[in-house]
Amino acid sequence: MLVALAGGVGAARFLRGLVRIVPREDVVVVVNTADDDIFHGLHVSPDLDSVTYTLAGAEHPEQGWGLAGETFAAMEAMERYGAPTWFRLGDRDLATHLYRTELLRKGATLSEATERITRAWGVGSRLLPMSDDPVSTRITVRTAAGGTTELRMQEWFVRERSGPPVVAVRFDGADEARPAPGVLEALDQADTVLICPSNPVISIGPILAVGGVRETLRRRRARVVAVSPIIGGAPVKGPADRLMGPLGIEVSCVGVAATYADVCGTLVIDAGDAARAPEVEALGVRAVVADTLMTDARVAAALARHTLDAVA
Amino acid sequence: MLVALAGGVGAARFLRGLVRIVPREDVVVVVNTADDDIFHGLHVSPDLDSVTYTLAGAEHPEQGWGLAGETFAAMEAMERYGAPTWFRLGDRDLATHLYRTELLRKGATLSEATERITRAWGVGSRLLPMSDDPVSTRITVRTAAGGTTELRMQEWFVRERSGPPVVAVRFDGADEARPAPGVLEALDQADTVLICPSNPVISIGPILAVGGVRETLRRRRARVVAVSPIIGGAPVKGPADRLMGPLGIEVSCVGVAATYADVCGTLVIDAGDAARAPEVEALGVRAVVADTLMTDARVAAALARHTLDAVA
Repeated sequence: MLVALAGGVGAARFLRGLVRIVPREDVVVVVNTADDDIFHGLHVSPDLDSVTYTLAGAEHPEQGWGLAGETFAAMEAMERYGAPTWFRLGDRDLATHLYRTELLRKGATLSEATERITRAWGVGSRLLPMSDDPVSTRITVRTAAGGTTELRMQEWFVRERSGPPVVAVRFDGADEARPAPGVLEALDQADTVLICPSNPVISIGPILAVGGVRETLRRRRARVVAVSPIIGGAPVKGPADRLMGPLGIEVSCVGVAATYADVCGTLVIDAGDAARAPEVEALGVRAVVADTLMTDARVAAALARHTLDAVA
Repeated sequence: MLVALAGGVGAARFLRGLVRIVPREDVVVVVNTADDDIFHGLHVSPDLDSVTYTLAGAEHPEQGWGLAGETFAAMEAMERYGAPTWFRLGDRDLATHLYRTELLRKGATLSEATERITRAWGVGSRLLPMSDDPVSTRITVRTAAGGTTELRMQEWFVRERSGPPVVAVRFDGADEARPAPGVLEALDQADTVLICPSNPVISIGPILAVGGVRETLRRRRARVVAVSPIIGGAPVKGPADRLMGPLGIEVSCVGVAATYADVCGTLVIDAGDAARAPEVEALGVRAVVADTLMTDARVAAALARHTLDAVA
């Protein structure tokens, strides 16, 4: 049994490759929920949905979120009411949020809702939210006027397009959040724990912050392998550089290694970063070189193979 | 100032004619909300929306509900989850329900939400829900097995296509419901109160059942004029016949007159029903004959003119 820690698009693409080389039912994915937010009263779980839609083969091929062939009639109509529509919810995607919100309102946990949604999409693998308790990433940014203000993740990332300079990041609720049922057991029993090429600060960071996760991974460190989302000093997609730098983490595979050093014995770095392998290993993390730019599912599958072999 | 009591499609078509002959801002519409229901966690107000969309000129030209050019991507996607989708919510219509539900959740009244929605659509007339308190039409029907069961209005009308024979109707919550702010004042001060050609049992009935409405109209009876929704023994649209008959109301303009006799001094009946005028008048209701089949907005305007003239 393999367990993968996952954020959004990078993780989804990696997992799409992974399930080409191992049976889907052998994979448990623990997904970040600290980006979850409420829009128009609906509980939106961006990372759970990205992984679900991608494993179902229904993801939008380019944009990194949402469904292929999606329409936006509801959001366009919402503009008439002056309601904030900067977070674009597609019409078919809305069904997911309506369904999840209704289940939660009726007393289901996020785990239970996720189980139903992934089953409906025929995902095949088990997706676990990192926690059924609310955890919310809050980003303190510098304002144009020179002060600071705290934004929710989607406000900073989507509404503000990662523009405002980051001062600090915290995971509201993480101290009290319990891991979702099955998370610690899965981490404990996994043959291998894969840390997907996701944002180490705000995608993997919240998972590690949930009670017991970091401790469990430390114990399993030899069986934990991460894939660096940073290639040649820049993230493949997303705002990792805008978060790592200000938080004193070098925007490189070395910075990723430093972030994961206590929980992760092996880091897969890109072939282009091979020269930095000694610096990674100086942190006590074994460096393995591979092609990490997942241009298509076949490359992603090869990367997944390399990653598993790295700790075989 | 004119006040109209309104249900769904029949009322909407009549009002579309009315605002051709009087300034929109002189019209206050008191709308049935006993058909309101919750679908996928969203507060749906079918009659408020039918009137809103029609007065905005955005209504579907044939089907009697929803928006012109509507799409149903969200509902189709919802089917994947096995959620009940017999009540078809269009994608653009969903925006209305999301917006209303969010306002209500944040503490707004249905009146306040309606004010915002109608303003966004440029309705021009004031729409008042009959009450901000929940009232819900419940229809007791005979089951195939010979027993009885109670259905909500939309379950009976939409899901069961008005099939199960009606035994009884009640308006759950009506005893405690207070009229929405402005309703009694408007009825009291109106030059004329129009009862639109809506279902007398389940569209106008609930409005009359809200505390103080019937009493106020009795006092204003000489200034109240109704338009019969029944032409030649059948409703123009909708299930009025399936409700009136079993409740002991003749399915005719005479039955309508009997239902409204205590609150309404004048009834507009169709030219085809002219022979029944004496029976209407025998109930103490003045009968006025007109063409009541609203084949287009021009006919509706002529009917509205006749109706106003009837109590001029």
